[in-house]
Amino acid sequence: KTRIAEAEESVELGDFDHYMLKEIYEQPRALAATFNATAGHEIADSAFGEGAADIFDRVEAVQIVACGTSFHSGMVARYWLEELAGIPCEVEVASEFRYRKRVQHPGTLLLTISQSGETADTLAALRDAGADDFVGSLVIANVDNSSLVRESDLVFLTRAGTEIGVASTKAFTTQLVALLMFTVALGRRNGMAAEKQQELVNALQKLPDFVQQTLELDADIKQLSEAFIPKHHSLFLGRGIHYPVAMEGALKLKEISYIHAEAYPAGELKHGPLALVDDDMPVVAVAPGDELLEKLKSNLEEVRSRGGELFVFADRQAGFISEPRIKVLPMPHCPEVAKPIVYTVALQLLSYHVAVQKGTDVDKPRNLAKSVTVE
Amino acid sequence: KTRIAEAEESVELGDFDHYMLKEIYEQPRALAATFNATAGHEIADSAFGEGAADIFDRVEAVQIVACGTSFHSGMVARYWLEELAGIPCEVEVASEFRYRKRVQHPGTLLLTISQSGETADTLAALRDAGADDFVGSLVIANVDNSSLVRESDLVFLTRAGTEIGVASTKAFTTQLVALLMFTVALGRRNGMAAEKQQELVNALQKLPDFVQQTLELDADIKQLSEAFIPKHHSLFLGRGIHYPVAMEGALKLKEISYIHAEAYPAGELKHGPLALVDDDMPVVAVAPGDELLEKLKSNLEEVRSRGGELFVFADRQAGFISEPRIKVLPMPHCPEVAKPIVYTVALQLLSYHVAVQKGTDVDKPRNLAKSVTVE
Repeated sequence: KTRIAEAEESVELGDFDHYMLKEIYEQPRALAATFNATAGHEIADSAFGEGAADIFDRVEAVQIVACGTSFHSGMVARYWLEELAGIPCEVEVASEFRYRKRVQHPGTLLLTISQSGETADTLAALRDAGADDFVGSLVIANVDNSSLVRESDLVFLTRAGTEIGVASTKAFTTQLVALLMFTVALGRRNGMAAEKQQELVNALQKLPDFVQQTLELDADIKQLSEAFIPKHHSLFLGRGIHYPVAMEGALKLKEISYIHAEAYPAGELKHGPLALVDDDMPVVAVAPGDELLEKLKSNLEEVRSRGGELFVFADRQAGFISEPRIKVLPMPHCPEVAKPIVYTVALQLLSYHVAVQKGTDVDKPRNLAKSVTVE
Repeated sequence: KTRIAEAEESVELGDFDHYMLKEIYEQPRALAATFNATAGHEIADSAFGEGAADIFDRVEAVQIVACGTSFHSGMVARYWLEELAGIPCEVEVASEFRYRKRVQHPGTLLLTISQSGETADTLAALRDAGADDFVGSLVIANVDNSSLVRESDLVFLTRAGTEIGVASTKAFTTQLVALLMFTVALGRRNGMAAEKQQELVNALQKLPDFVQQTLELDADIKQLSEAFIPKHHSLFLGRGIHYPVAMEGALKLKEISYIHAEAYPAGELKHGPLALVDDDMPVVAVAPGDELLEKLKSNLEEVRSRGGELFVFADRQAGFISEPRIKVLPMPHCPEVAKPIVYTVALQLLSYHVAVQKGTDVDKPRNLAKSVTVE
């Protein structure tokens, strides 16, 4: 009934020191496989399973439910669905969604996201929601025949291949490919211009190249990572669609380096967390090219005197240059919709290098399981 | 046109060491004043300004926009509006709301929350939203004749009196009183039973007593606070309506003690932050009485061996008792709707005592302004 997700990548380490690094480097191939296996040059409704066209015709709103890293991919998708497809979207952590008395807008599709397809809270949310008035359920998962895949009306299988590192990398970015394809499928029902659809398809096709260019920054990112080794804290800032990217970057650093990294929407910095910034708390900004950087600079002016340092991931064409206590990492120039994926890859490398240099067990961080199949 | 918010409290320190402590102790009076000045024994639409009844009749959804602490009160209100009044509600940080292309549900009221009524991002959000299709705008503010008050269709003035401590305390809890009154005003248009309305009014009337009982735990909370003085991190966990309470508790600790406190929905602990928990990161749980505590205990079982400690704020009737590495603070038994306010007061005292013992400038934490009137 659903397609088979082939393990496209070997589960051997090969020349890599860790599965996480191997999986980071597999992303160009995994992203292309996810887009191509089901879409080719157009994005067919049938990529989401039998009956997708009928259900998509009735979708007026989307409720996304997920946990951890998958929750972050849902948060990125919310921007795409609202801005590109004009579909109102809410995103909620599964363990919260389950226990809340909700008010559902009519015509809502329930979208769950889970690498393993077995995440306990997400599965329970799908089951609990069965009685509610959803137009249908769609799961984005990486494992065929998993519980979420079996129990959802519609299925999109990502082609990440087996992911062994506990800290998710290629599963996250392939979820984003699936979510952008989903945005196009809904958008063309909701007035998205043909040129816009083509622009998004083009961006998806070129995505592996932009990710490859990001991987080529590995040595630069490793060098930048050295500043984080002695630190115990970090703030990750982003605005708009880059706020969930900052959340994902902070989660990666938490998970594998045990540095207490926390993400904030950039504008909230002055409403509290600015009090924390000192020489033990570097600030990372995901700020491709908007006016955010100037505001951040003025927000951080006074903390620079106390040793506060800012690390900015910015489009190389934005013309930002490093200055004392502000280190700019120039990123590949790419379309807006590619940026959440491209910048995530850079932050994955940052976390990886910090963790390796700190000597943690990168592939199996303490206390964490690969799939959280208990509540 | 709108009522005058009288400064009901003196701005003298009196017997208190800090304005923050004075303002924490003023809460029973401020909460009563906010409820009584405008409501008495019933909650009149006119408490929200002229024309409130007409606008409220047309409300089908609520969009809340705020920053910092006021954002947290909006997050609490979302649970009330959805669960008690059956009104869908979204809450967004003002600096994010402004810069996002949104899809608005029909019949949406724009609700801004700001102690000063001058918060730059919130004011800009109100102005930017002018062109959108809102049924009207309501502000909850503590300062009359402020910009947000002048520019909103409807106004509810809290009666917190002048708040001098930079870390907001009584402004936050009086906002929650206003938001619960607002929930009743919308709820009675949407099928809220008369008995339920009366139950909420009763809870609001008794609220000052429950807060007073919480203030009487001051010595116990001070004793508990000592464990936090040498720490550099903390996690605050809550579920449902207690998640924003945990967020507010974490923000207070950040702001005045410079301990890096971060809040998480309790169920997300095992999706990443559990890797961080060790003897330098105590975990605070806002867990009045639900089954959350048992799950948390099993989540934390393995970190207890590494020195992880759990501090639980729980209803005194829930029967939880302290055990090795789990310290329970028994809280006053009170109605569900009172809990977000009552538990917040306990967390305010916790932060205050940690900060005083760490010797920080409690009333004027570094880098922070009382009202953020710049972007």
